[in-house]
Amino acid sequence: MIKVAIVGGTGYTGVELLRILATHPQVDVTAITSRSLNGTRVSEQFPSLRGHYDLAFCEPNIEQLCACDLVFFATPHGVAQAQVPALIERGVRVIDLSADFRLKDIPAWEAWYGQEHAAPALAQEAIYGLPEVNRADIADAQLVACPGCYPTAIQLGWIPLLEAGVVEPAQLIASAASGASGAGRQAKTELILAENSDNFRAYSAAGHRHLPEIEQGLRGVQPSGASPAQVTFVPHLLPMIRGIHATLFAKSSAGLSPTELQTLFEQRYKDEPFVDVLPPGSHPQTRSVRGTNMCRISVMQPQDRDTLVVMSVIDNLAKGASAQAVQNMNIMFGLTETLGLESPALLP
Amino acid sequence: MIKVAIVGGTGYTGVELLRILATHPQVDVTAITSRSLNGTRVSEQFPSLRGHYDLAFCEPNIEQLCACDLVFFATPHGVAQAQVPALIERGVRVIDLSADFRLKDIPAWEAWYGQEHAAPALAQEAIYGLPEVNRADIADAQLVACPGCYPTAIQLGWIPLLEAGVVEPAQLIASAASGASGAGRQAKTELILAENSDNFRAYSAAGHRHLPEIEQGLRGVQPSGASPAQVTFVPHLLPMIRGIHATLFAKSSAGLSPTELQTLFEQRYKDEPFVDVLPPGSHPQTRSVRGTNMCRISVMQPQDRDTLVVMSVIDNLAKGASAQAVQNMNIMFGLTETLGLESPALLP
Amino acid sequence: MIKVAIVGGTGYTGVELLRILATHPQVDVTAITSRSLNGTRVSEQFPSLRGHYDLAFCEPNIEQLCACDLVFFATPHGVAQAQVPALIERGVRVIDLSADFRLKDIPAWEAWYGQEHAAPALAQEAIYGLPEVNRADIADAQLVACPGCYPTAIQLGWIPLLEAGVVEPAQLIASAASGASGAGRQAKTELILAENSDNFRAYSAAGHRHLPEIEQGLRGVQPSGASPAQVTFVPHLLPMIRGIHATLFAKSSAGLSPTELQTLFEQRYKDEPFVDVLPPGSHPQTRSVRGTNMCRISVMQPQDRDTLVVMSVIDNLAKGASAQAVQNMNIMFGLTETLGLESPALLP
Amino acid sequence: MIKVAIVGGTGYTGVELLRILATHPQVDVTAITSRSLNGTRVSEQFPSLRGHYDLAFCEPNIEQLCACDLVFFATPHGVAQAQVPALIERGVRVIDLSADFRLKDIPAWEAWYGQEHAAPALAQEAIYGLPEVNRADIADAQLVACPGCYPTAIQLGWIPLLEAGVVEPAQLIASAASGASGAGRQAKTELILAENSDNFRAYSAAGHRHLPEIEQGLRGVQPSGASPAQVTFVPHLLPMIRGIHATLFAKSSAGLSPTELQTLFEQRYKDEPFVDVLPPGSHPQTRSVRGTNMCRISVMQPQDRDTLVVMSVIDNLAKGASAQAVQNMNIMFGLTETLGLESPALLP
Repeated sequence: MIKVAIVGGTGYTGVELLRILATHPQVDVTAITSRSLNGTRVSEQFPSLRGHYDLAFCEPNIEQLCACDLVFFATPHGVAQAQVPALIERGVRVIDLSADFRLKDIPAWEAWYGQEHAAPALAQEAIYGLPEVNRADIADAQLVACPGCYPTAIQLGWIPLLEAGVVEPAQLIASAASGASGAGRQAKTELILAENSDNFRAYSAAGHRHLPEIEQGLRGVQPSGASPAQVTFVPHLLPMIRGIHATLFAKSSAGLSPTELQTLFEQRYKDEPFVDVLPPGSHPQTRSVRGTNMCRISVMQPQDRDTLVVMSVIDNLAKGASAQAVQNMNIMFGLTETLGLESPALLP
Repeated sequence: MIKVAIVGGTGYTGVELLRILATHPQVDVTAITSRSLNGTRVSEQFPSLRGHYDLAFCEPNIEQLCACDLVFFATPHGVAQAQVPALIERGVRVIDLSADFRLKDIPAWEAWYGQEHAAPALAQEAIYGLPEVNRADIADAQLVACPGCYPTAIQLGWIPLLEAGVVEPAQLIASAASGASGAGRQAKTELILAENSDNFRAYSAAGHRHLPEIEQGLRGVQPSGASPAQVTFVPHLLPMIRGIHATLFAKSSAGLSPTELQTLFEQRYKDEPFVDVLPPGSHPQTRSVRGTNMCRISVMQPQDRDTLVVMSVIDNLAKGASAQAVQNMNIMFGLTETLGLESPALLP
Repeated sequence: MIKVAIVGGTGYTGVELLRILATHPQVDVTAITSRSLNGTRVSEQFPSLRGHYDLAFCEPNIEQLCACDLVFFATPHGVAQAQVPALIERGVRVIDLSADFRLKDIPAWEAWYGQEHAAPALAQEAIYGLPEVNRADIADAQLVACPGCYPTAIQLGWIPLLEAGVVEPAQLIASAASGASGAGRQAKTELILAENSDNFRAYSAAGHRHLPEIEQGLRGVQPSGASPAQVTFVPHLLPMIRGIHATLFAKSSAGLSPTELQTLFEQRYKDEPFVDVLPPGSHPQTRSVRGTNMCRISVMQPQDRDTLVVMSVIDNLAKGASAQAVQNMNIMFGLTETLGLESPALLP
Repeated sequence: MIKVAIVGGTGYTGVELLRILATHPQVDVTAITSRSLNGTRVSEQFPSLRGHYDLAFCEPNIEQLCACDLVFFATPHGVAQAQVPALIERGVRVIDLSADFRLKDIPAWEAWYGQEHAAPALAQEAIYGLPEVNRADIADAQLVACPGCYPTAIQLGWIPLLEAGVVEPAQLIASAASGASGAGRQAKTELILAENSDNFRAYSAAGHRHLPEIEQGLRGVQPSGASPAQVTFVPHLLPMIRGIHATLFAKSSAGLSPTELQTLFEQRYKDEPFVDVLPPGSHPQTRSVRGTNMCRISVMQPQDRDTLVVMSVIDNLAKGASAQAVQNMNIMFGLTETLGLESPALLP
C-alpha cells in the first residue's frame, strides 16, 4: 500500500482526490491537512464521504508528511513552492496540482501570477504530468507538476496536429468553456448560483493564466525548426458543475484529407487508455466523461475548407486535475496505469 | 462469474445497470436487448460506455436469456409480466425494475395502471426487493420486484416510526421531489430542458402510481392491530438530473424526545450498509448520494411540537432503481452485499 | 411623478425594484444608496440596466431621502429600524422590504433575529403590506412592512381556508421551496453554483425566521374564537434562480366537496388582480409567474381523503418582494394597482 | 391599433411574440393559428398568459389573415413560402420568422434545407430584417425575412470590422453557443433535461444551416472588391433556456489599435437603440439581455497579437427572433422603434 497525504484538502481538487482514492486498492490516505478545518472530520465537511474515511483534517506537519510515500498538493498557487522543497530534500515524492511548477519560464510565471517564485530551481526539475507526452519521465520523477484543466483539454486536442506539423502554428484559436467547479470552492459573489445559472459569458479573454502553459506544452511537441505555437485562448463559464469543452481551430498547412486527419488522431492515441478518438462526425459531450479520467476528441474539416476543428472534452476536476494526478501516481509507483480509474462516466 | 442479461437496455435504468455492472468483479453482462436498437453497439448509443462494453443490443431471445443466471428487466410496466413467466418456468432468476410485480393487490394494480395484469399469481410469489425489510426472503427469491424510487426514499424514512408505532398512521404526509431522470428517457415536450430548467412544479398530486406501493410497504411493517398507514403523497419535478428528496411529516403519538427519536433511527439502521442516519440537526442533500446506493436520513421535531419531520434522500436511478437491483443481486447470489457499490458520491 | 429613493440598492431586491421601476410611468427614481459602491454607476454594477438609469450609488443622506415622496428599504434586517424613524418623523412614506417591521410581537422578533429591536413602537404602527388582506390600511399607511417571500406564498394559499374556518388550524404543514436568489446576493461558499446546481435539500427545518410571520398572518384572518393557526414549515433550496413553490397540507374539518373548495378559492380572489386560482386539477409552475407579481394557486383533495393540498407559486423577488412593494406603492399613492406590473411572465 | 395575426403560435417564437405584444400599446392580436390546438385557449396552453389573452387557437384561414394589417409567421421552414404568396397578393404585410425568405441564393437554400423552394421570386423581393443594416428598406417592405438567432448575434459582432475592411475576410471563425430554447419546443429525446443539464457539446460543426445566411449578410456589408467573407462556424448547446453568446475571431489586417477598435464599434452603433457596445475590457453576459431586444458587444485584442476577439450576446428568442420581429414591425408601421421593447432584462 502506498501511503499518501493530501495538503489542502478542502477545495474541490482535494475532495476529488479523496473520492477517487477511497476505492483505490493500493492507496492508504494517512493525512489530509487544512489549517482552517483542523480537527474537523472529513466526513463532517463532505457528507458524501461518510463511511469512507475516519480521518480528520490536521495542520500541516512536516514529519507526518515525510512519513508518506507521496504527498499531493491541492492548494492555491504559491503554497506548494514554499513547502515542497523541504519534502523533496527528505526524499518524499510529490504531485502538485497547482500551477507552481508547471512553467519553466520563471519570469513568465512571476508576471502571470504577480509574485516572486520561491523555488525556481525546483521548477526546472519538475516533470510536467501529462502522461500522453511525458510518461517515461513521470515514472522516475520525484516532483510532478500536474497540468491545468484547460491546458490538458487543449493540448490533447492539438498535439497530433502540432507533432505532425500539419497546421500553421501561429494561428491557433481555442474557444473553451468550463463548468463552475473550475473556479474552485470559494466564497465569491460572482460564483453564486443566482449569478451564474441560466447565464453564459467569457472571462479573462484578454489573457488567462493557462495561456503560457498551453503554449509551452504545444511548443514542446513541435518538430524542431517549426515556428512556435501561438494561441488565442478565450475561456467561458458554463452554468453547470463539471466539464471542460475545448473547441479548437487551426489552419491546415499540409492538405490532409478528412480520412488522413482521423487516422492521424487515432494512431497518435491508439495506446492511450484515457484518450478516446471518436468516430468521424461525432461531437463529444462533457457528460460522457463526467467523473472520469477520459478525454474524448473529435476532429473535423467543415465545408472542406482549410480551417480544421478539433473538439476535446474532459472533466475539469478529474482528467483536468485529481484523476490525472492519480494516473501520474500509478505511473510513478509502477502500478497499472488505470488502477482506481476504471468506472464509466455518471450518465445521465 | 454471474452471467446476466438486461431486457430493455435503452432507458435510464438500463444504462445505469450497465454503468454499475461495468466494474462489478463478479458479473458478466452477456446480453442486452432492445428491439428498436437491434444491432447498435451499446457504446455507440451511450458514448460514456465506450471502452467498457463490446456488446450490441439484440432482440429479446428466450434461449439466450435462459442461458443466464439472472435477467434484469429494465422495461416499462407491462413488459415483464408478459415475459417473466417463461423465464421463471425455466428456472432463471429475475429482478424486475418495473412496477409489474410490486403490488400484491392485483385489482389495485389494474386500477392504477389501467390494464389487466398478465401474471397475477407470479405477483403473489414475487419478493419485494427492499433489503432493509426483506433481506432473508430476497436471498432465496427467484423473482424480485425492485421498489420504485419514491417508495424507497419514503419507506426508508418512515419505517422506524411505523415499526415502533410511535406516530399516527392515518395522517402521514409526504412531499417529495425528483430529478428529471425519474421521468425516463422519453421524447416528450413536457420533459425538454427549455420547459423544465429554472422551474419547479408538483405533478400527479391527485394520485400517483407509487402511492399504493408506499402504503403497502408501510402497512407491512406496522405492528399488528395498528390502524393502516394512510399517506398523502405529492411528488414534484426538480430542474436537475438525479436525486429524490422526501420530506415526511407525521404526528407523534408516543411523546418521544428528540434524543429518543434519533436513537430509534440509528438503532434501526445500524447494520444497514446503505442507510446512513445523519447527526441531529443535519439536512441531507441529494448530491451526497449522487450515483450511489446510499440513503441518507435526518429526523427532527421542529419547535418541540408534535409534528415530526423526516428527510430522506436517494439517487432515483441508483438506490431508487439500478443500484438497489445490484444490491438485491448480491444478496441473491451470496456475494458481499456492497460489492460493486462502494464508490462515494460524485460531489461536487 | 412620484419621487422615490432606494436604500440598499446592491442586493437582489434592490436591483429588482430598479428593473420594475425603469418602465413605471409614474415614478422617478432619484437616489439609490450603497456605502460600498458609493460613486459607482448603477449601470456599471448591473449591465442589464445600461441605458435605463444614469444614477450612481450614493451614501445614505437624510436630506436627500426626505426630499422624496417614498423611500424603499431593500436592506438586511436591522438597517431599516435604525434609519426609518427619522424619515417617518419628517413625513416621508416608507416601504420596508426587510423583516424589521413585519412582526407585532417584539420579543418574538428579538428572539428569532437575535438582536434588540430599535423601533418597537413603530413596528406596532406599521401596516403589513399584503394587499389581499390589508388593502385599505395600506392606502393610508405611512410605513408599510412588505411581507417575506415564503409568507406571501403560504398565506395566499391558506387564507381562504382559514378565513372560512374549514380546516384544523393546529395541524398546518407547509413544504416550500425557493430559488437561490432568495438567499440574496451574498459571497458565501454554500451559495456557489458548484454547491447547489443538480442538488436539492431542506434547510432551517428546525425553525425558519419566516415561521412567526406566517403564523401571525394566518391568525390575523381566522374567525374570532378559532384555535390559533400552528404551522410546521420546512423550506428547501432549489437549483434555480427565481421562484417559490409552497405545497400546503391541511386537515379538512368541514367536509367541503372539491367543487365547494374550488369555489371558495375562486370567490375569495375573484377581484384580486394578482392572485390567479387555476382550474381544478392544475399544478401551478413557478415559471408561469417568473418576473411578475402574480400568485397562482391550485387546490386539491387527493383520494377524497380529508387532507387538503394547496399549491401556491410566486416569484420570490417579485410578488415575494419588489413587485409586491410596487403594488403597495401604487395603492399608497392612489394609482391603478397594476401600473408597471402588467408584463406577462418570461416563459420559457 | 395595428391588427396582427400570428401563424403558428405554439412554438417558442410564437409564445414570445404573444408575451411581447401583450403590453404593446399599438397592437391588437386578433388571431393566432394552430392546427393541432384548434379551439384551445392560448391561456390554457400557456398559463403565463392567463389574464392577458382571451384568444383561442384557430385553424389558418386566409380571409381572417387578410383582414389583418400584419401577419407574423412563427412556423417551421417550408410553411411560410407556401402560404405567404397569397397574402402578399392581397396586400397584407408579412414578417416571417422562419428561414424561408432569408437567402437570396435559392439553390443554396434548397441544398441546405433539402427541399424545393416554393416561392423563389418572392425570396428575391423579401427584405432581410436586420434593422442595423436595412432600416430604410424595412420601413417600406411588404415582406420581411426576420434573421436567424445565430446570424443576428454574429453579424452584429462582425459588421463594424467587415464594413471597415480591417480584417481578413477569408479567415473568420465563430464559436457560438445557444440556450436550449433555440432548438424549439419539440418532443425529442435529445432535448430532454436529463440529457442536456450539466452537459455541453457542439453540434452541426460540419455545417449548420445558419452558415450561408451569416456569410450572405457579411458579404452584403463588405466594401466592393473585398474578397468574400468566409466563416468557420461551430454552434454549441448550453444547459440553459435562453441566450446566445458568439465568440468571434478575426485576423486584423489594418493594424488598428485597441482604442481605434473600440471607437470603430462605438461609432458604428452610436444611434442604434438595441446594440450596446460595452466599455473596454468587458465580457458581455447572456443574462444581461434576457427577455430583451438588446445585443451587447465587446471587442478585444488579446496579448496585442493580430487576432481580434469580439463577443456578442443576444436573447435567441428576443433579438434573435420575436423581439426583433416587433422591432421590424415598429419600423414598418412608422412607430417609435423601441415601442413595447423597453423593459430591462430579467436579472437575476
